[in-house]
Amino acid sequence: MKLTLVGAGPGDPDLITVKGIKALQQADVVMYDALVHPDLLDYCRPDALKVYVGKRRGAYSCVQEDINPLIVHYAQQYGHVVRLKGGDSFVFGRGYEEIEYARQHGIDTDVVPGLSSSYAVPASANIPLTTRGVSESFWVVTGTTKDGQFSTDLRLAAQSSATVVILMGMHKLANVMAVFADCGKAETPVAIIQNGTLPDQQMITGRVADIVQKTEESGVGNPAIIVVGEVAGLVLSDVVALENYAQSGQAD
Amino acid sequence: MKLTLVGAGPGDPDLITVKGIKALQQADVVMYDALVHPDLLDYCRPDALKVYVGKRRGAYSCVQEDINPLIVHYAQQYGHVVRLKGGDSFVFGRGYEEIEYARQHGIDTDVVPGLSSSYAVPASANIPLTTRGVSESFWVVTGTTKDGQFSTDLRLAAQSSATVVILMGMHKLANVMAVFADCGKAETPVAIIQNGTLPDQQMITGRVADIVQKTEESGVGNPAIIVVGEVAGLVLSDVVALENYAQSGQAD
Repeated sequence: MKLTLVGAGPGDPDLITVKGIKALQQADVVMYDALVHPDLLDYCRPDALKVYVGKRRGAYSCVQEDINPLIVHYAQQYGHVVRLKGGDSFVFGRGYEEIEYARQHGIDTDVVPGLSSSYAVPASANIPLTTRGVSESFWVVTGTTKDGQFSTDLRLAAQSSATVVILMGMHKLANVMAVFADCGKAETPVAIIQNGTLPDQQMITGRVADIVQKTEESGVGNPAIIVVGEVAGLVLSDVVALENYAQSGQAD
Repeated sequence: MKLTLVGAGPGDPDLITVKGIKALQQADVVMYDALVHPDLLDYCRPDALKVYVGKRRGAYSCVQEDINPLIVHYAQQYGHVVRLKGGDSFVFGRGYEEIEYARQHGIDTDVVPGLSSSYAVPASANIPLTTRGVSESFWVVTGTTKDGQFSTDLRLAAQSSATVVILMGMHKLANVMAVFADCGKAETPVAIIQNGTLPDQQMITGRVADIVQKTEESGVGNPAIIVVGEVAGLVLSDVVALENYAQSGQAD
């Protein structure tokens, strides 16, 4: 009995790792999330059982408390379960909860890290989270915490010179930007990238003071990554970046 | 003329992405760094030119100011240059400097993100940078800044509840730990992982107050990732994690 957590990466199916593919090829059961690209299931054996356990904010088809016993059930019945999750399983992926639960039931576990959207999506839009003389650190926070409150860390992050990346934060965008504005950062550049690394990737850029209005006008929404910091301004003078990425993606 | 930055991942050659392999297969020239696994060069075409431009702290065989014009030279002479760098090119990888320089010389650029060691190495040692109820954010800083000084962000990071990951910080470990101790975190768990995701991966764990001595006794050194936060304590009760990883790595 074995559980292998595999990170599927940020969207583009070619951004999975070789090690992730090898795990999929060995799996007896693959349990996959909503944000996993369907092409990745082609790596599974024809006789592998494929189980959709997607959850999306506001429309839970499957909650975490249901997924944990399901993993144990399938491992006991079939052997090797691969849990295929968007991005990386250990970056806000609740992967550790699945690992702990499985171990308590005597199941061996392994982790194959995946590309986290937190930096891979900005990179694909030509935004480096760090670059000499502009930003020397980055901080990744979630807009959706366990108790529904903001992380108190957000205010410290807003005071720092770190690039701040907010995942799952679009529903609280106005509140998040208010924290930055309170810290004297109304003019700090912001980039919001939807469907990063996919052909329908969209990006809007602006500043803390105007990004909420721009977002409303553009219609850009979830799933999206919010990047706050001077590095987001590098791309302001570089509007062809996205087109280049989209073209290269299709040429592959 | 084209430059493609490809992130090679944290060490294990199977942690490169499919998209990275495709870029290597198309390259006329591959310029690679010291931390790139040699097996990855097997993906190159037999007629591709392979150029080592490694640099390591204290023993610079090639400095960034030499690499930039070399990229332009090879792109002009041969066509498609792949720049293969350990981890991810945009996370302290100086990739953006190469992109900017190449564009100034009329070279098209593309970015294929790679697994950053910052979270992939802890994940492979069963340490999640975030997990519900333990840590809701993470902050990645470098111990080696442009001017040789600490980032001022480190003190803010030490005050936060974020998991703090320090890259390239082993030569300043005592100074880094002193900052955390000053912020009342002498008892906070610390994990240091050397050669992460490779067969010779080594990890030591301790607390802010004793990790410097433990490190000296163990002989663990660069290249290593330092993780400070309660998540590093999850593995304290879980000493078999590393052995499991090493075994599964060899079985693949």
